[in-house]
Amino acid sequence: MSVYLDFNATTPVREEVLDEMLPWLRSGFGNPSSSHYLGRAAREAMEHARSRVADAVGCEPREVIFTSGGTEANNLFIKGLASSLPPSRISISSIEHPSIAKPARSLTRSGWSLHAISVDENGLLDMDDAGNAFSEGGIASIMFANNECGVVQDIRRIAEMAKSGRTWMHTDAVQAFGKIPLDFKALGVHAMSLSAHKIYGPKGAGALIVDGRLPMMPILEGGGQESGLRSGTENVAAIAGFGAAAEIAVSRMAALTEAVASLNGKLASALAAMGAVLFSRNVPALPNTLYFAFEGLDGGTLVTEMDRAGFSVASGSACSSGATEPSSTLLAMGVNPDLARGAVRVSLGEGVVDEQVSAFIAALKSTISRLSGMMRRLQA
Amino acid sequence: MSVYLDFNATTPVREEVLDEMLPWLRSGFGNPSSSHYLGRAAREAMEHARSRVADAVGCEPREVIFTSGGTEANNLFIKGLASSLPPSRISISSIEHPSIAKPARSLTRSGWSLHAISVDENGLLDMDDAGNAFSEGGIASIMFANNECGVVQDIRRIAEMAKSGRTWMHTDAVQAFGKIPLDFKALGVHAMSLSAHKIYGPKGAGALIVDGRLPMMPILEGGGQESGLRSGTENVAAIAGFGAAAEIAVSRMAALTEAVASLNGKLASALAAMGAVLFSRNVPALPNTLYFAFEGLDGGTLVTEMDRAGFSVASGSACSSGATEPSSTLLAMGVNPDLARGAVRVSLGEGVVDEQVSAFIAALKSTISRLSGMMRRLQA
Repeated sequence: MSVYLDFNATTPVREEVLDEMLPWLRSGFGNPSSSHYLGRAAREAMEHARSRVADAVGCEPREVIFTSGGTEANNLFIKGLASSLPPSRISISSIEHPSIAKPARSLTRSGWSLHAISVDENGLLDMDDAGNAFSEGGIASIMFANNECGVVQDIRRIAEMAKSGRTWMHTDAVQAFGKIPLDFKALGVHAMSLSAHKIYGPKGAGALIVDGRLPMMPILEGGGQESGLRSGTENVAAIAGFGAAAEIAVSRMAALTEAVASLNGKLASALAAMGAVLFSRNVPALPNTLYFAFEGLDGGTLVTEMDRAGFSVASGSACSSGATEPSSTLLAMGVNPDLARGAVRVSLGEGVVDEQVSAFIAALKSTISRLSGMMRRLQA
Repeated sequence: MSVYLDFNATTPVREEVLDEMLPWLRSGFGNPSSSHYLGRAAREAMEHARSRVADAVGCEPREVIFTSGGTEANNLFIKGLASSLPPSRISISSIEHPSIAKPARSLTRSGWSLHAISVDENGLLDMDDAGNAFSEGGIASIMFANNECGVVQDIRRIAEMAKSGRTWMHTDAVQAFGKIPLDFKALGVHAMSLSAHKIYGPKGAGALIVDGRLPMMPILEGGGQESGLRSGTENVAAIAGFGAAAEIAVSRMAALTEAVASLNGKLASALAAMGAVLFSRNVPALPNTLYFAFEGLDGGTLVTEMDRAGFSVASGSACSSGATEPSSTLLAMGVNPDLARGAVRVSLGEGVVDEQVSAFIAALKSTISRLSGMMRRLQA
């Protein structure tokens, strides 16, 4: 059995979460739009889940729009809001997930002007650049915590700046949820994306939390589910699982954060001692994420070798299928392309124990020494 | 325990299908975009499902684009194709599901001209009107089998007409799948929508089958999954269930069709004897669907009373949340609004037995006689 150290890509479904899903995959199979008892039971399960998600992130249940996941939530915000506004400015950070960056770029085809706010060498947003960007109004989306390097932005302050610029402000909190306390109201953003499968819930459920004042239009039109903002028969089982996962994520966050932060510290020290370049250190960052590279070693090769040795880690972003380009996040942070191609991400999560981290360090050491030896022989 | 007679709204997940889903909700939780072994296993499960769906409907695996369901598949066809074409004509039937009708109407805001092809009193497409519509080129979408009245169109002939008009032709086969043999290549359409939860598979999975020559653009942009046409971490468990459900649906179609057709005939005779108006009779129609109304009785009331009596049926379309308007399908068929408000749909499926249909008929008789008595007293 392999040791899974790739929790930012996806997480296992908690057993308690699966238990809450199964009734809706068995006898409780009704369509929530049906008026009969099976339909009503499914609708009640969905509304219970909506309340749990709302409680977990400090918003009203009516502000929770369930989607099929984080990518759909991000697309819904960008496209759904832009299509009801006259074209103006869209501002995003230069390290957004592709599910924000690509829809934002697509808007330029319909007259929007895209501004990618620069970040520093750790991935922290340039606040002066942000202030200038927001001064033109329009739409902004700044990710809460980056999936690759783990850097965490000061979203509350950024939201204040956006508000003073009369800019509709969204944050992609998919990676932050379950790792950092989230309070929608206190943050002051107008919208926020969440995903179930990053918090030990199932794939197939996510949400856009959205302030009712936003003039949103749906992307998926049809039966008018989710207050008309997301049509389609609801994935009741996944939504029920999302509700359970959200509630549990909040209740266990403190303990989980403490456990992974301690293991992460040990791993970081070992990597530094081995000569790795560590990204986004000494800035606010996710407690479970380490992003690093060894000069001259390809990240993809390292991930493949570690997989053979029984450790599941990621190179670049696992969300981009078959990517061979250096990480655009690292390039935006000013990392040179050769070093960026070496990037490997370790992301810890529930159930990972000290012995596994020690075993990972030992295997990495031996892999690197073997690969370095091969490199030297090839160059000789 | 209630008797479920609403299989067009949704179906229970087969036990064998759930068995094929569970491994991907437990130890096989990897992200298909991850390169390590858990990711590869998830990807293989998805590709296996893709082959099974392709085999079930006579297309190539690469033509299967997995979505979160039928509504997304319909929206993807309309919006994804329209956004890469100069605005021209979009032709749909006047009895399409809202997930086709609404996106088609939305296109008129960007310069498209919408033509709703008329249908006759049974819901059959007016072929002359269709020919005229297609002669202007553009996009067409004609549903294979209607979810409410069950009428089945001659899609092969309609596709021929569309081709001679140089029109990109799609069919929403969500209700037809599993009830009528589907052969994508033989039908000659360019695209076709499917949904898992109508064929005893899970909610949360569907597909757009799409000819590679179509200049499609994605709605959901991001990591580039599904050949770039549908980004977002794939719902592996639901997709695996969809593959299993598709394979089983085809293998059991003949037996299921025979069983439900016989029960449907019995029910139709009983309803006619009770004085019901039956819609879309004596035309090609789904073998499991009966759509009827009793003059002067409200369909919603009847559904509520039958629910109390232990029978789950539908009024109008279960896919429209909280609809109180008379069915637009019946209005398009020329049914007068008062009668249309009485519409009730019974849709049979696997596991329904003769005794249950007899019990339904008996309960309906007594409910109708009670409601009619109340009506008479109110009017007296």
